[in-house]
Amino acid sequence: MGQISSPANPLFKRIRKALDKGTLTDDGLAVAEGPKLLLEALRSGVTVDRVLVEAGTARLPSAWTGPVDELDPRIFRELKDTQHSQGVLALVRPPVLPEPVGTPLVVFLDGIQDPGNLGTIVRSAEAFGATQVVCLKGCVHPWNPKVLRASAGSVFRLPIRYAVDDVSEFSVLPWYGAVAAGGSTINLVDLSTACGIWIGNEGTGLGSNWRERCTSVQIPTAHVESLNAAVAASVILYEAHRQRAANSSVFL
Amino acid sequence: MGQISSPANPLFKRIRKALDKGTLTDDGLAVAEGPKLLLEALRSGVTVDRVLVEAGTARLPSAWTGPVDELDPRIFRELKDTQHSQGVLALVRPPVLPEPVGTPLVVFLDGIQDPGNLGTIVRSAEAFGATQVVCLKGCVHPWNPKVLRASAGSVFRLPIRYAVDDVSEFSVLPWYGAVAAGGSTINLVDLSTACGIWIGNEGTGLGSNWRERCTSVQIPTAHVESLNAAVAASVILYEAHRQRAANSSVFL
Repeated sequence: MGQISSPANPLFKRIRKALDKGTLTDDGLAVAEGPKLLLEALRSGVTVDRVLVEAGTARLPSAWTGPVDELDPRIFRELKDTQHSQGVLALVRPPVLPEPVGTPLVVFLDGIQDPGNLGTIVRSAEAFGATQVVCLKGCVHPWNPKVLRASAGSVFRLPIRYAVDDVSEFSVLPWYGAVAAGGSTINLVDLSTACGIWIGNEGTGLGSNWRERCTSVQIPTAHVESLNAAVAASVILYEAHRQRAANSSVFL
Repeated sequence: MGQISSPANPLFKRIRKALDKGTLTDDGLAVAEGPKLLLEALRSGVTVDRVLVEAGTARLPSAWTGPVDELDPRIFRELKDTQHSQGVLALVRPPVLPEPVGTPLVVFLDGIQDPGNLGTIVRSAEAFGATQVVCLKGCVHPWNPKVLRASAGSVFRLPIRYAVDDVSEFSVLPWYGAVAAGGSTINLVDLSTACGIWIGNEGTGLGSNWRERCTSVQIPTAHVESLNAAVAASVILYEAHRQRAANSSVFL
């Protein structure tokens, strides 16, 4: 077991930078916080490069049998936003996932800024059978540690492309763009066949260049109220899953 | 316009305490952060008691014509979690809302801890026509400033009861409790008649005492994956709204 007590330690500096910037470490590893995410990484078969713990904590899951580095609590507390880590940080290699199979249900994200929202969307996307998530340039980084946490590990399993600016390969799909008003009602749109769902920025919605290339769809609501972006994405994906399952008669 | 430059100012101290504790001020006012929430408060007809701005910022909506107190930027920055406020804080009186009308769709929350989740649930509850939200003892405070923000103002309009421990008056309703697995599939359960939807804690789910009094329902997913608590609540409420609207033929 290694001991790290200096903030000048190169590994510590890489982790701190990744947490501060909300991205991968300079050597391309994702920082997964907390024993639960470490377990999700292990069960998902991704490579866990190393595990660090805050010295004095003993919440490391027994499933992890590899080496552990200990961080002095004084420098551990210098790390940003680690209040949910329970003293455990895992460095995880983003996996190369197989090409998606099955009827495409592609989630396109335009300008999602909140890491909690992105993680929640990825979690719902996996749950409702989306085949991949495409983050356009300008979205928060999908390997931001806060995205990992909100995804509850789904980023380890669902193919995600990011910083994408060319989506021409997907233009054969019908594209449905979520709008707050003035679109077709999602339960009356056929989402059971191959399609793409477009979700826009939390404040400003879908960029006009994308909106005009999409069929506008909206979630029926009792009042004219907008929904949280992650909720809107999740409800549309639920509706797509409901329709697909009804068509294939596998719904219970 | 008043000027506040000392952290010993009694009003400043009340606001700081409310932000720190995530609750109302000692004189019973809610802290609404940012010009958007101020506008939501005004359009919702709630009483805005006073408005404070960070001196030097000029993002106050013109719809606010009442008095304004200026906070010295040095003490404004002492306030917790105001990075989304854009220098605007409104003190809002929680409204006494009329008794809910219409076919009851009551959302019961057991141990929701994350203010973002609670706010998102309230926002979705309003959008999908829930008649009220009942927060059991142990939930995060619905007037926590972070809840207000995530609710996008829905807390100003939807009846919410909190710190509730006696729900016997609702026991005439059929109660449906959200579970991750082993429940009836929500789209095959009749949610169009008067009912209560129970949502449990983010990590541990619904308490067993409540679970055994509910019919367990689950959201169909493609894999056995859990969903974020706010997403689960939102999807069930969407399904209830879809069924209700289909029954009343008002769905477009």
